Amino acid sequence: MEQEIIYTRDWVGPVFDAIAELVPDKAILITDTNVDRDVLTLQRDRIYGAVDDIITISSGESAKNLDTLAYVWKRLADAGCTRHSLVINFGGGVVSDLGGFAAATFKRGIQFVNVPTTLLAMADAAIGGKTGIDFAGYKNEVGAFAPACRVIMDEGLLSTLPERELRSGFAEVVKMALILNDPIYDELIKEDALHDSELMRRAIKMAADGKLLIVNSDPYEKGARRMLNFGHTAGHAFESYAESIGKPISHGEAVAYGMLVALRLSCDRNGYPVKKVDEYEENILKRYYEPLPFGEEAEPELQRLMAHDKKNIKNGEINWVLLK
Amino acid sequence: MEQEIIYTRDWVGPVFDAIAELVPDKAILITDTNVDRDVLTLQRDRIYGAVDDIITISSGESAKNLDTLAYVWKRLADAGCTRHSLVINFGGGVVSDLGGFAAATFKRGIQFVNVPTTLLAMADAAIGGKTGIDFAGYKNEVGAFAPACRVIMDEGLLSTLPERELRSGFAEVVKMALILNDPIYDELIKEDALHDSELMRRAIKMAADGKLLIVNSDPYEKGARRMLNFGHTAGHAFESYAESIGKPISHGEAVAYGMLVALRLSCDRNGYPVKKVDEYEENILKRYYEPLPFGEEAEPELQRLMAHDKKNIKNGEINWVLLK
Repeated sequence: MEQEIIYTRDWVGPVFDAIAELVPDKAILITDTNVDRDVLTLQRDRIYGAVDDIITISSGESAKNLDTLAYVWKRLADAGCTRHSLVINFGGGVVSDLGGFAAATFKRGIQFVNVPTTLLAMADAAIGGKTGIDFAGYKNEVGAFAPACRVIMDEGLLSTLPERELRSGFAEVVKMALILNDPIYDELIKEDALHDSELMRRAIKMAADGKLLIVNSDPYEKGARRMLNFGHTAGHAFESYAESIGKPISHGEAVAYGMLVALRLSCDRNGYPVKKVDEYEENILKRYYEPLPFGEEAEPELQRLMAHDKKNIKNGEINWVLLK
Repeated sequence: MEQEIIYTRDWVGPVFDAIAELVPDKAILITDTNVDRDVLTLQRDRIYGAVDDIITISSGESAKNLDTLAYVWKRLADAGCTRHSLVINFGGGVVSDLGGFAAATFKRGIQFVNVPTTLLAMADAAIGGKTGIDFAGYKNEVGAFAPACRVIMDEGLLSTLPERELRSGFAEVVKMALILNDPIYDELIKEDALHDSELMRRAIKMAADGKLLIVNSDPYEKGARRMLNFGHTAGHAFESYAESIGKPISHGEAVAYGMLVALRLSCDRNGYPVKKVDEYEENILKRYYEPLPFGEEAEPELQRLMAHDKKNIKNGEINWVLLK
């Protein structure tokens, strides 16, 4: 997958560079209402001079639907975009998922650049080429494998991100450190690691480079990419269950607890050190995440949810991603 | 582009083979109301045993829209399709364009097989991976480059095709013979070539294999594939103009006249033999196509239409595809 990650302390510069080097006939920035209000506004003058149009979609996962997609396609058509135009996705995972899919299908595919503005998008969603929308009640039911030609990472964009969203993304950063067995993990478990911007800058690089490496070894998710699912087997079940009882939790919170389940199983089955699990529980889980809004009564339904997801099942059993 | 073309005299057999070899968890056939009524009905019992569901869309270019696409996505979701399901597009260009795009994007892409039922689709649309829908008033505004994994060609399916549609597809067959300078051209200009099923079987193979060869040398339409546009520069203008004055002509008719323009320019600019142009006019154009429904008065508007299509313009001039 040809995907270049650019680390910067001023995201506007690399956007200018991308436009100068890719020479699109039109450059269109896609963002959402929250990012527009909180982040883009700081650079509005510089950005307005560089792009031909700005498409603002509603913020939140509920906007990741067919109506919004059709709206973006229509705006691209109205702006006179051609196969030689460029889309710049400026926002979190919803913007890069939907904007990426719109670009991947407009005129049978135009180039796009991702500028993630959330920690979750920096560490995960903006990289690797998975784009799409939710449809007919299913997440990412419709989409394409289409990589952004460039991903521009500016950790400074996180300064206005709400604490809860920072914590949600942190779980994916920790996940990458765990599955890559990266030494930065020892720093991530220190107090207030999440607010140490120099550390986070390095952690984002570890997570993004690591994800790209794994994705490149398996672009269509046939094998190695599965390890990215560490913590997600139970995590997705926690997320669905919490939503079903009207007490929704963040993706990161769900994954953080999902990783605890996977770590414990890694001890039982693979001899993973118990000490590491305790360390994780103490320094990551308890420090950054609220207790789950349900108890043991959820067990049967959680089992059912995990078994229902076909991706989890191999030879009739739940196929956990575990560490060694 | 991994695309296998299978030539057969019984299309159902290779569909069974595809299902047996690709082992999808679901096999869904997509067709349109006309093809369903005129063609599929003859094989209904055999096909019903092989596929899990049949999705029938309205026939005609006007069905190639977002509503129909959403309907197909919904039906695939309702049928419980997964990433390991298979779509079989059974119909003309609208079915393979829309069904192919639906498959290319459902769950970020599932495999599909094309079984073209029109001469135009056999010679052109079903091969090469261009899929998509019309959107916001533009043809193929949204889509993907996604090849059918197999294309099953059964010339016998043409037996119920209306004469006008046969003639429309014939123009693309003749185009391929001209641009490939294939000896079969001398047979195609003989009387009643269009109704000689043995000849047409060979001509379809020439056109389909030829298109695949060109497409494989240029899958994303950056260079060589442009030669497939022979006859289409003026042809598209004829088609648009005829529609604008309320006297629509078929795509093939437009291309047949577009090829005359391109052949004459090939004489003037490249020394292409005048005798060949006369031969084309006498044995193809006059034999199979009605006179255009407009005269010289259309000239300024036709020029404008050609210049308006950015694909046609290079260094400020119309960039004709010509023969030598």
